Amino acid sequence: MRRLYHLSFEPACRKIRLVLAEKKLEFSCVQEPVWERRETFLALNPAGDVPVLVEPEGRPLWDDFTICEYLEEVYPNPTMLGNTPDQRAEVRRLMAWFDRKFGREVSDNLVGEKIRKRFMGKMTPNSSAIRAGKQNIHYHLDYIAYLTEQRNWLAGSDLSLADITAAAHISVIDYLGDIPWAQHPGAQAWYARFKSRPAMRDILADNFSGIKPSAHYADLDF
Amino acid sequence: MRRLYHLSFEPACRKIRLVLAEKKLEFSCVQEPVWERRETFLALNPAGDVPVLVEPEGRPLWDDFTICEYLEEVYPNPTMLGNTPDQRAEVRRLMAWFDRKFGREVSDNLVGEKIRKRFMGKMTPNSSAIRAGKQNIHYHLDYIAYLTEQRNWLAGSDLSLADITAAAHISVIDYLGDIPWAQHPGAQAWYARFKSRPAMRDILADNFSGIKPSAHYADLDF
Repeated sequence: MRRLYHLSFEPACRKIRLVLAEKKLEFSCVQEPVWERRETFLALNPAGDVPVLVEPEGRPLWDDFTICEYLEEVYPNPTMLGNTPDQRAEVRRLMAWFDRKFGREVSDNLVGEKIRKRFMGKMTPNSSAIRAGKQNIHYHLDYIAYLTEQRNWLAGSDLSLADITAAAHISVIDYLGDIPWAQHPGAQAWYARFKSRPAMRDILADNFSGIKPSAHYADLDF
Repeated sequence: MRRLYHLSFEPACRKIRLVLAEKKLEFSCVQEPVWERRETFLALNPAGDVPVLVEPEGRPLWDDFTICEYLEEVYPNPTMLGNTPDQRAEVRRLMAWFDRKFGREVSDNLVGEKIRKRFMGKMTPNSSAIRAGKQNIHYHLDYIAYLTEQRNWLAGSDLSLADITAAAHISVIDYLGDIPWAQHPGAQAWYARFKSRPAMRDILADNFSGIKPSAHYADLDF
């Protein structure tokens, strides 16, 4: 059986769970406490972080970009990248937008302070980082609304890794209750559609010890 | 003509110059002072950073991962990723190793403090960050030696984006004189081979205003 070493509140790991589910590939999950630097895990991935995907009879794949490209090459249907080099460039551009730009400007500030720090034993979140994350999120939600005014999904007519990557980040922040949905109906409409996909079911059932999910986290009509 | 908006001392930009040169694709370069946030540049790339590649008659491509995958799809010969999903996964894993792990542990500390800060008008490098970068570099150079003991190039028998990415980072740090070559003959032997490739010529002629290159920067027998 395919096995995913992950942390359920890391956006990069949620991305892989969503890709696997959209492609209807079965997998089992192992929560990997990367901060313990377990020797057997370091033997799988000397870089020491998650996600790591071990294919049946295959060697371990790392990192999230590598895993997505590999899954797309080996299991091309349904495609999560698109069918032409131009479409794929647009999907990858938006993946990079959410993983790198949104990641740095929003997730690192909110998920980093509220969740990652707990694992590291540092219990006091930096309030100015949290403020910055909450401020930065607005124009990203505007960008989602702008894209979906012109397109069915973020990168074009079909659901793709662009939507998956955006939802992987946003779902963690939504768990924390830090998405100002009321001010962003366009982004909300996109997320409501994404949230109702079967691939999201597992993620909406995630629970983080010590932090309760926001009231609407698992609600499909939020 | 294909046009690359770049900063010549950013590893992600050097990577694209090297890929284009290895694939023998002609291009012209534009230094883009991203901190000025020029409106015409933001129209090309709302994310506001480099590299951005504008293909002849094409729309702008961003970011460096996207550009590499696009060039590989549209100009597959010679391949910089390999011919099977497993080979490509190994190349991408090592790309991620150098771009993300080496980038965070070494380049952000050394290139970040010594070069990026100058652009931002912050002139005092953080000496503890520089110390951390110089300490972290050792095990990465050991890793290069370890890989090339078993393989001709970093990811296998052929030169690939793994070598290009590693060299893109290392060449900037070598300009600063911060690679302890004497202690790492294995990594040095690999870099000497890479350095002598025609694709490196332009990069070895780069000059950063206000910082002289290390004495051996452009020397093929260093």
